Amino acid sequence: MPKPDYHIFVCVQRRPEGHPRSSCASRNGEAVFNAFATELIKRNLQNRVALTNTGCLGPCQAGANVLVYPGSVMYSWLAPEEAALVIEQHILAGQPYTDKLAPRELW
Amino acid sequence: MPKPDYHIFVCVQRRPEGHPRSSCASRNGEAVFNAFATELIKRNLQNRVALTNTGCLGPCQAGANVLVYPGSVMYSWLAPEEAALVIEQHILAGQPYTDKLAPRELW
Repeated sequence: MPKPDYHIFVCVQRRPEGHPRSSCASRNGEAVFNAFATELIKRNLQNRVALTNTGCLGPCQAGANVLVYPGSVMYSWLAPEEAALVIEQHILAGQPYTDKLAPRELW
Repeated sequence: MPKPDYHIFVCVQRRPEGHPRSSCASRNGEAVFNAFATELIKRNLQNRVALTNTGCLGPCQAGANVLVYPGSVMYSWLAPEEAALVIEQHILAGQPYTDKLAPRELW
């Protein structure tokens, strides 16, 4: 693809059950990734917006974490049903979805 | 961590031996990731530069692929021993390491 207008990174890090850091996989990371994939296809945005699954982004306790470039905007505690809101508000209207922005101490 | 000055994403996607798309794992992606980790620690840059492993970034035939934000600068066919050059030239001097920039048709 050409350089995308936006790049969405979704943490799908998996750790064993009971691991002290928990993980985004245990907080619906894969469902969040799939929700973004579905919503991008639905809006025919696949050629403008890149979507990549990742290992650990850092604030494991606040998963599922989603990071959007440009701007290094981190969303934490994101649920699959909020993927559409991030796309509509952040990607299409250029205004971050403020409900789940990571707090300053995390990112 | 606070928002990083740079964020380096290294593809470590793995696919079965003989898969038609090949993969960055079969082109030293994990060694490239480890080389960046080592070089960042050596220069005490871990608090300014984020490093994340990823699934597929797209141009599988040109792995190992490494993507740097800001700017969405993609390096392809990157070898582990070139991690130090990317850090010195791109991250520290602000000039992309031109030898392995992905060609326009790939990114």
